[in-house]
Amino acid sequence: MFDISPVSHEFDEEIQNKIDHKTKPLGALGELENIAIQLARILDKDKPEIIKPKLLVFAADHGIAAFGVSIAPSEVTTQMVINFIQGGAAINVFCRQVGFELEVIDCGILQPVQGVEGIIDQRLGAGTKPIHKQPAMTLAAVKQGFEMAANRIEYHHQQGTNLIAFGEMGIGNTSSAAAIMACIMNMEGAECVGRGTGIDASTLERKQQLIEQALHLHEAELTTPMNILACLGGFEIVQMTGAMLAAAERNMILVIDGFIATAAAMVAVQINPNVRDYMIFGHQSDERGHCLMIEHLQARPLLKLGMRLGEGTGAALALPMIQAAAGFYNEMASLNDVGIDI
Amino acid sequence: MFDISPVSHEFDEEIQNKIDHKTKPLGALGELENIAIQLARILDKDKPEIIKPKLLVFAADHGIAAFGVSIAPSEVTTQMVINFIQGGAAINVFCRQVGFELEVIDCGILQPVQGVEGIIDQRLGAGTKPIHKQPAMTLAAVKQGFEMAANRIEYHHQQGTNLIAFGEMGIGNTSSAAAIMACIMNMEGAECVGRGTGIDASTLERKQQLIEQALHLHEAELTTPMNILACLGGFEIVQMTGAMLAAAERNMILVIDGFIATAAAMVAVQINPNVRDYMIFGHQSDERGHCLMIEHLQARPLLKLGMRLGEGTGAALALPMIQAAAGFYNEMASLNDVGIDI
Repeated sequence: MFDISPVSHEFDEEIQNKIDHKTKPLGALGELENIAIQLARILDKDKPEIIKPKLLVFAADHGIAAFGVSIAPSEVTTQMVINFIQGGAAINVFCRQVGFELEVIDCGILQPVQGVEGIIDQRLGAGTKPIHKQPAMTLAAVKQGFEMAANRIEYHHQQGTNLIAFGEMGIGNTSSAAAIMACIMNMEGAECVGRGTGIDASTLERKQQLIEQALHLHEAELTTPMNILACLGGFEIVQMTGAMLAAAERNMILVIDGFIATAAAMVAVQINPNVRDYMIFGHQSDERGHCLMIEHLQARPLLKLGMRLGEGTGAALALPMIQAAAGFYNEMASLNDVGIDI
Repeated sequence: MFDISPVSHEFDEEIQNKIDHKTKPLGALGELENIAIQLARILDKDKPEIIKPKLLVFAADHGIAAFGVSIAPSEVTTQMVINFIQGGAAINVFCRQVGFELEVIDCGILQPVQGVEGIIDQRLGAGTKPIHKQPAMTLAAVKQGFEMAANRIEYHHQQGTNLIAFGEMGIGNTSSAAAIMACIMNMEGAECVGRGTGIDASTLERKQQLIEQALHLHEAELTTPMNILACLGGFEIVQMTGAMLAAAERNMILVIDGFIATAAAMVAVQINPNVRDYMIFGHQSDERGHCLMIEHLQARPLLKLGMRLGEGTGAALALPMIQAAAGFYNEMASLNDVGIDI
């Protein structure tokens, strides 16, 4: 499933050599050098360039949200989707600033937004079922979500886009992501649960209980990545997972950010480990669960700004760093060019 | 000396209130919220905007460089200045990308560059004297450097610029910066010395010895910030210190980056502590000495990318984060705008 080539190391020596002859001390650009190597391997060893970068916000609602695990009701998902379309959210501001084209995908919010242009309709339903009581969705819905996501990635690929960043919106989706994390990392559910966007102690406790309940309820079913998504997932998590795999199949750079997208990335890696080669991680959240997942994925996020907003905000702000990596690789003079011999 | 107003906290409640009513959970933009508060306090509580940001690279040579403390000879300072003018250095690439106008200031490199347009001439001499043998420069040179720097800042201020970032180039300048750091933080010279751009163990040992020797030689003189600059400074460090103070006097945002600019910032704070309010720190270097100075200044750099190049590269890459802070403050919708009530 998914024909993803492992990234070739054929030209590693040439790539490293090019970096080492730039007008700078060896290794002096730190993490940007690692990103440049990754871009050169994937896009073009001679001149890797980021083309028409897109940031996709996957929105969906979660049945579990009705059971008091969030600071906000599910209606806020829809209100924020409208805010995205109107251009007033943090992710709009950041995308405009750094040059990301933003796309909002309705993967299944409670009520589809009426009379508003610009939302991509990929609805898998009106929110998932509450995962502590029943599977979030059918296996058929997971497959349909993968198909829709792949089609959308193919559309962007056709447009020439070679970098996709992943953002999300969905009240309750940290519960789903925490359950998936617990399952994949073989941890207690309670250990994977954080305060999300800022819940109090009693809400946190309820959240932990419901996630433990969900993990216990579906225990026998959680044997494949697809089943994990069906039992514990959200419509946006399913489509992000599918989109990551489809984008890697097409040799695109994936920029992953936040707790929910990282959970989707973990499922994607379970399905096909080669996808990992195409991932760049935007921002390290302070949330303990996110740190553990990042460690598990052996990733080093570019930014650490103490943000915990989601929407792909950390991925958006990472774009200038990724472009700086491509920029120094493509544009800097070599020591030879300027006659320095050290 | 220097008429720098402490930043006003008069509108802090209004500023915080505006941030807290944006369409996001409380505090969810982490460090960007702190930067937004700082920008609003300094520039405009209603709509802080970054105008014509400039990155100034201060270049100079150091007498101590002739005594084997660096991987490269002093000639490389000139070669890199030419590289800056030709647009081939890392800082050129990053400035072009993020929208910084770059200016290169010759504060006293060994040989002035002939026949090349675009270098600002603020030469205080042809490199400093070796600080382990005699004072780097006279007190008169320090004062002249402050004056030149202030004039240049006034020029940028007249142009409407309200943000200045500080970069540098100068073979041997980490030795000068380490000596200044040791002096101000009352540490052993050897503890403040790192590997700079990548020296070996025996060069490191010699560098440590020469810095200890310099500190010992000038011990009786190191009683005022101006004397510290005269005995241990570099022409670029002097002018950066003066420029920081002059820019804060004019209510400009200062973006500080790297070991050398941070040493200059420490001297500036000694001269007038109010200057600290205007500083944003771009990048946390891995170098231990830099970490200690950052702690001393109670600063939290925006980026941590393992870079150790200087030139102001970390300040350049921090600009998109600073603009994101201004952007969310100015452009994001409020909860009220979109009808969310949480």
